[in-house]
Amino acid sequence: MKVGIIGATGYGGLELVRLLSMHPEISVMNFYSTSDYTEDLTTYYPHLSTSTSGAIKKWNKNKSVSENDILFFATPHGVSSELMGEIDFSKTKLIDLSGDFRLKKEETYQKWYKQSHPCFSKTNQFTYGLSELNREAIKQSNNIANPGCYPTATLLGVAPLLKAGIVQKNSIIVDAKSGISGAGKTANQTTQFMNRNENLTAYKITEHQHIPEIEQFIGTIDSSQDFITFTPHLVPMTRGILSTIYATSTREISNEELKEMYNQSYDDSYFVRVRDGVPCTKDVYGSNFCDLYATYDKRTNRITIVSVIDNLVKGAAGQAIQNMNLMLGLPDETGLQFTPIFP
Amino acid sequence: MKVGIIGATGYGGLELVRLLSMHPEISVMNFYSTSDYTEDLTTYYPHLSTSTSGAIKKWNKNKSVSENDILFFATPHGVSSELMGEIDFSKTKLIDLSGDFRLKKEETYQKWYKQSHPCFSKTNQFTYGLSELNREAIKQSNNIANPGCYPTATLLGVAPLLKAGIVQKNSIIVDAKSGISGAGKTANQTTQFMNRNENLTAYKITEHQHIPEIEQFIGTIDSSQDFITFTPHLVPMTRGILSTIYATSTREISNEELKEMYNQSYDDSYFVRVRDGVPCTKDVYGSNFCDLYATYDKRTNRITIVSVIDNLVKGAAGQAIQNMNLMLGLPDETGLQFTPIFP
Amino acid sequence: MKVGIIGATGYGGLELVRLLSMHPEISVMNFYSTSDYTEDLTTYYPHLSTSTSGAIKKWNKNKSVSENDILFFATPHGVSSELMGEIDFSKTKLIDLSGDFRLKKEETYQKWYKQSHPCFSKTNQFTYGLSELNREAIKQSNNIANPGCYPTATLLGVAPLLKAGIVQKNSIIVDAKSGISGAGKTANQTTQFMNRNENLTAYKITEHQHIPEIEQFIGTIDSSQDFITFTPHLVPMTRGILSTIYATSTREISNEELKEMYNQSYDDSYFVRVRDGVPCTKDVYGSNFCDLYATYDKRTNRITIVSVIDNLVKGAAGQAIQNMNLMLGLPDETGLQFTPIFP
Amino acid sequence: MKVGIIGATGYGGLELVRLLSMHPEISVMNFYSTSDYTEDLTTYYPHLSTSTSGAIKKWNKNKSVSENDILFFATPHGVSSELMGEIDFSKTKLIDLSGDFRLKKEETYQKWYKQSHPCFSKTNQFTYGLSELNREAIKQSNNIANPGCYPTATLLGVAPLLKAGIVQKNSIIVDAKSGISGAGKTANQTTQFMNRNENLTAYKITEHQHIPEIEQFIGTIDSSQDFITFTPHLVPMTRGILSTIYATSTREISNEELKEMYNQSYDDSYFVRVRDGVPCTKDVYGSNFCDLYATYDKRTNRITIVSVIDNLVKGAAGQAIQNMNLMLGLPDETGLQFTPIFP
Repeated sequence: MKVGIIGATGYGGLELVRLLSMHPEISVMNFYSTSDYTEDLTTYYPHLSTSTSGAIKKWNKNKSVSENDILFFATPHGVSSELMGEIDFSKTKLIDLSGDFRLKKEETYQKWYKQSHPCFSKTNQFTYGLSELNREAIKQSNNIANPGCYPTATLLGVAPLLKAGIVQKNSIIVDAKSGISGAGKTANQTTQFMNRNENLTAYKITEHQHIPEIEQFIGTIDSSQDFITFTPHLVPMTRGILSTIYATSTREISNEELKEMYNQSYDDSYFVRVRDGVPCTKDVYGSNFCDLYATYDKRTNRITIVSVIDNLVKGAAGQAIQNMNLMLGLPDETGLQFTPIFP
Repeated sequence: MKVGIIGATGYGGLELVRLLSMHPEISVMNFYSTSDYTEDLTTYYPHLSTSTSGAIKKWNKNKSVSENDILFFATPHGVSSELMGEIDFSKTKLIDLSGDFRLKKEETYQKWYKQSHPCFSKTNQFTYGLSELNREAIKQSNNIANPGCYPTATLLGVAPLLKAGIVQKNSIIVDAKSGISGAGKTANQTTQFMNRNENLTAYKITEHQHIPEIEQFIGTIDSSQDFITFTPHLVPMTRGILSTIYATSTREISNEELKEMYNQSYDDSYFVRVRDGVPCTKDVYGSNFCDLYATYDKRTNRITIVSVIDNLVKGAAGQAIQNMNLMLGLPDETGLQFTPIFP
Repeated sequence: MKVGIIGATGYGGLELVRLLSMHPEISVMNFYSTSDYTEDLTTYYPHLSTSTSGAIKKWNKNKSVSENDILFFATPHGVSSELMGEIDFSKTKLIDLSGDFRLKKEETYQKWYKQSHPCFSKTNQFTYGLSELNREAIKQSNNIANPGCYPTATLLGVAPLLKAGIVQKNSIIVDAKSGISGAGKTANQTTQFMNRNENLTAYKITEHQHIPEIEQFIGTIDSSQDFITFTPHLVPMTRGILSTIYATSTREISNEELKEMYNQSYDDSYFVRVRDGVPCTKDVYGSNFCDLYATYDKRTNRITIVSVIDNLVKGAAGQAIQNMNLMLGLPDETGLQFTPIFP
Repeated sequence: MKVGIIGATGYGGLELVRLLSMHPEISVMNFYSTSDYTEDLTTYYPHLSTSTSGAIKKWNKNKSVSENDILFFATPHGVSSELMGEIDFSKTKLIDLSGDFRLKKEETYQKWYKQSHPCFSKTNQFTYGLSELNREAIKQSNNIANPGCYPTATLLGVAPLLKAGIVQKNSIIVDAKSGISGAGKTANQTTQFMNRNENLTAYKITEHQHIPEIEQFIGTIDSSQDFITFTPHLVPMTRGILSTIYATSTREISNEELKEMYNQSYDDSYFVRVRDGVPCTKDVYGSNFCDLYATYDKRTNRITIVSVIDNLVKGAAGQAIQNMNLMLGLPDETGLQFTPIFP
C-alpha cells in the first residue's frame, strides 16, 4: 500500500509517520505540504531518520491523489476542506483528521467553527470514524471524518449508558483535560512552556467546537438528549486526555451491572479496556487504547465515568490508521499493537 | 507574638514557616514534632537557613501551650485530634489545619474519615475558618478549624450563587484538580515522580473526605441543598487547585449580572479577585489569592465557575495566617501581601 | 523613589514589578514599552492586579528619564543600546539588564553578539553589577551593567578559587543548566511546551555570548586565565540555573579548607550561602540567594563546584534591585528578604 | 524462545516486558520475584493487560533456570549477585542488568559499591555488554553484564576519540544528566514528585559507582587514560540521559574530520546515529537509539560531545535485548525497531 500524508510536519502527521513506519501493510509513504517545507522530512525531524525518509512534496491535487492508495489529511480545519474541495473523490480513499467533515448541518459548522465551509455538500460522503461505535459503516466507506480527540474519549465513555437508556435527559456534563499537544505545533503564548508548565487552566468554556460533534453522535444513540455541558482544560503534560463524565441515572444500578454493561459494549473491541479501577493517562501512553471506568453513586444517583486516551494516537493518528485497517478489511489492531510506555 | 507550629517539617508547616518568617507581628516561632525530628529545622531544610532557625522540639502538651501565644497544628487528621484531646483549650488560641474539627456530626466524621475521633465533643468549640465567608465568627473565636484545600476553592466559587438562591436543588457538580503537594510529604507510589509526571488521574471518586465538608457549609447558606457530586484529580504540578463547578440555574441570568453578584459578595475581600476571563493556577502561585470566574450558558441553563487557589497558601497555611490576623484584630492581608510568582 | 521599567511585559520586567511592588523604598513604578503595549499592565497580567497598576506608556527619551529617579532597562540586547544611545546619562541613574554594556572590547561584542553596537563608547561609563564581587564600585556608580544569569551563577561559584590562586591555567570547564524562562517570553519552537517538556538538550556549544563575559571578569581576578569552556543546557523547568564548574587544582586541598575559603569570601554577603551539601535549584526558588557547594577530589586533583540561583531573581531582576540598593546606600537585602518557595 | 525476567515489577523489568512483548522470537515470558508479588503482573500494571499476562512466580534457582532459554536479571546490585551465586551457569544463558558483574577487580567493586560481593569469582565468566563496542565477544558469550545507563551514553560518545588516540591523558570530564526513572521504582524523598518537579540537582559528586565502570572500559581502548571526572544530575523528566563530555585534544581537528571519525566507528551500528546538530533526549524517547554530536573548539583546543539515550531502553532493557539478539545470532535490531515518540 502506498499512503500519502498531507501535513506530515504537524503533530497528527508526525504520529501517522511514526505508526505507519511500523505498519506491515505500508510499503510507501509520501509526504505533502501546502506550505514551505521542501527538504526531506528527516531534516526537520532527525529522530525519524532511521524509520523513514522522503522529501516533502508540494501538494498537487491530481498527482497526490494518483500516486497513493489512500490519503491522510493531517491538516487543520479550514485547510482540509479547501484541499478536498478540489479533488475527485471517486479516485481515492481518504481519511481527514480535521473537523471539517464531521458535522452534518452547515449552520452548526458555521456557528461553532466561526467560518464558512468551501464545500459543505461533500460532507454527506463522509462516514464518522469512531471505530468501535461505527465499525460497519466505516468498512463500507471510502471517506472518513476522523473524530476529534475529546469526542473520542467522551463518546467511548458514555455510549454504553446511552445504549442502555439509563441517562436522564440532558444530564450529561463532561469535564475534559488534555495535554498540551492537543493545541498543535504552532508556537504561541498558549503553547509556550512558561505559560503551561506548573500551571492549569480551563478554556473555551461553553464554546469548544467539539461540543456539537459530541452532541450529534449522542443524538444518534439516544435521540432524547439535546445537549451536554463540556469544559476543556489544559494540563501540563504533552500527551493524554482524561475525560470525567457525569450523568444522572434513570434508576439505581450496581457497579457490577454497570461493568457488565461496558464489557458487553466493548466485547469485540481490541482497543477499549474496561477497568476495575480508575485509569490514568499513562496507562495508554503512545498507544491506541481507551481505558474506561464507571461507578454509580447511590447517594447522588449519578454515574461518574473516567475515560483516558493518548490524544495523538486514539484521539488522532492511531484511530485514523484503525479506520484505514477497517476500510482495507484488516483487523483493527494491525500495525497498532503497541504496548503503552510506562513509566 | 510567639507562635508554635506543630508539624513544621510537613508541607503545611513549611509554608507556615515561610509566610510567618515574613510576618511583621511574629517575633518568635517554635517548632514541634511528635516524631523523630530533633535537629534544627534548617538542617532538614537548608533553603530556610537565612529566614529562620530553631531546633525542632518534642511536642509537650503543657510546655508547648504555655510558651506560645498561638498554636498552629499542621498535623494530619487523627494526629491533630489526638494531641488536642490532651490540652486545655482555655489556655491557648489554636488553629488546626487538619480535617479533625470541621465536621459537626460524629457519624459523618466516622463515615468519611473511616476512623473514630478521640475527642469529638471538642468540635463545637471550633469555628470553621473560611475567612471571607465566616469573618465575624472567626474574629470572636479562639479555636479555628482551617478549611480543606478543595472546600476553600469550591465554596468561595459557589457561595455567591447560593446566597442569591439561583442554584437548582442538588445540581452542583464539582470537578476539582490539584497539584501533587496536596497529597503531602510522605513518599509513596502516589506521590512518586514517575507516577505523576506526564500523567493525570482521578481518585477517591464519590469517596473524598472533603465532600461532607463542602456539603455542610453549602447547607448553611442554602438549606435546600442536600448533596453535591465531587471528583478530585491529580495534576502533574506541585502547587495549585483549579475547581470547575457546574450548577443548573433557576433562571436565565446575564454574565454582567453574574459578575456583579460576585463583585458584591467579595467587595471587601482583599484576597478574592473576580476575573473577566478564565484564571489559571499560576495567577495565584505562592500567594493567598483566590481568583474566580463565572459564566452562564443559555443553551444548557448551567453556570460554570472556575476557582483557583494555591493549595498550600489559601488552601492551607495562608488562610490559617489570615485567620490568625482576624483573631488578632489585624487586617486580613497583614504579612500576606505576596505578589504571585509568574512565570 | 520613583522607578521606571522599560520592557515591563517581559520576564525580567515582570520580575522587577513583582519584587519592586514589595520594596519599602519604592513609591511609584512607571512602565514603558517600545512596542504595542498601551493598556494597563494588569490587563496583560491580571495576576498583578492587587500588587500594582498603571498604563504602559510609550518610551520617550526625555520624559521617561525626567519622571523617574532610576531606570531599569529590561530590554533585549540591541534594544537597550539603541535606547541608551539617545539619552543623557548625566540626568539619570540606570541599570541595564541586557548584555549591551558588559563587554569592554568592541570587537568582542561584535564577535559574540553577532551585531554592531550603536553607542559602544558609552560602555566605559558602566560598572559591572556583580553585587558581591564589585560592591564598592557599584556604590559609586550611576550606570550598572547587570550581569547575565549564567555569569552570575558561574562567577560567584569560581571566584573564591581564583582569588586564592589555586586554579590551574585554563582548566575551567563550566557545564550550565537553565530553566526555560532564560530564553525569554517570545513564543517560538525553542520555548514551546512540547519541545521542552520531558526533554533535555544542550545549545550554542562554544558559542554562547556569556562566554566572553565570564572570561572578562575571571581575568580581572586571575590574569593568568585566558579562556574557559562553557556549555549551556535547557532543562524542563521554568526557573533556576545550576552551574557545575570543574577546575584543576594547583595543589591538594582539604574540603574543610575549601569551605573556609568560600566562607571568608562571602562572609558579609547576605545572599550567598555556602552549603555543606549539594544544593538544588528549588533551594533558591523565587529568591535572590546563590547557594554554593565545592568539593575537592584527590583522585583526579579537580575541584567541582555547584552553584544555584533563580535565573530571574539573582540572575536578573533581583540582582538589579540589589544593585539599586547599593547605589542608594541601602543594605543589599532591602526589599529582597524573600524566603525561597518550597515545595 | 522462552525468557525469564527476574524483577519484572521494577522499571528495568517493565521495560523488558514492554519490548519483549513486541519481539518476534519470544513465545513465552516468565516473571519471577524475590519479594511479595504473587498476583498476575497485570494486576499491578493494568496498562500491560493486552500485551501480556502471567502470574509472578517465586524465584526458584533450579526451576527458573530450567523453564527458560534465557534469563534477564532486572534486579538491583547485591540482589543479582546473591541469586547468581546459587545457580549453575552451564545450564542457562543470562543477562544481568545490575552492576554486580561489570567490574573486573574485587577491591574496585567493594570501594565503589560499598559492599562485599558474594560470588566475585563468577565475574570473569561475564562479557561486558556494550553492544556496539564489544559485539564479537557478546556473540560468543553466555553471560552478559549489561552496562549501566551513564556508561552506555558516555562510552559510545567518547570511544571514537579514544580509538583515534586524540584525547590528552586524563582530560576527560563527563557531566551527565538523567531523568528520574534512573533512580528506580522505590518511593523515597529522592524520587518524590515535589522534590524533583521544577528542580535540578547534582548528586554523588566524585562518588558514583559508574565512574570505575567507565574508566575500566576506557582503559581497554586507550591504556594511557587513568581516570575521568564524572558528575551525575537529576533532571525533572522521567526518561532520558544526556551526557556532555569534554576532552582536550592532542591536535587541531576539523569538525568534518571529527564527524568522519564517528561515522566510521558506527558505520555498521543500527542504533548509533551520528548527528549534524545537537540532539535532545526526546530524539530517542522510548527507543534503543544513541544519538551523538561532537564539535571541536579551536579557541580552547577542547572537543565537546553530546550523547543522548533513553536510560530505560539503550541504557537498560533495550541494550539487554540487543545483546540477546547478538547471542542468538539475530540482527541487533530484531524486535527493537521502535520509532522514537515525539512529541
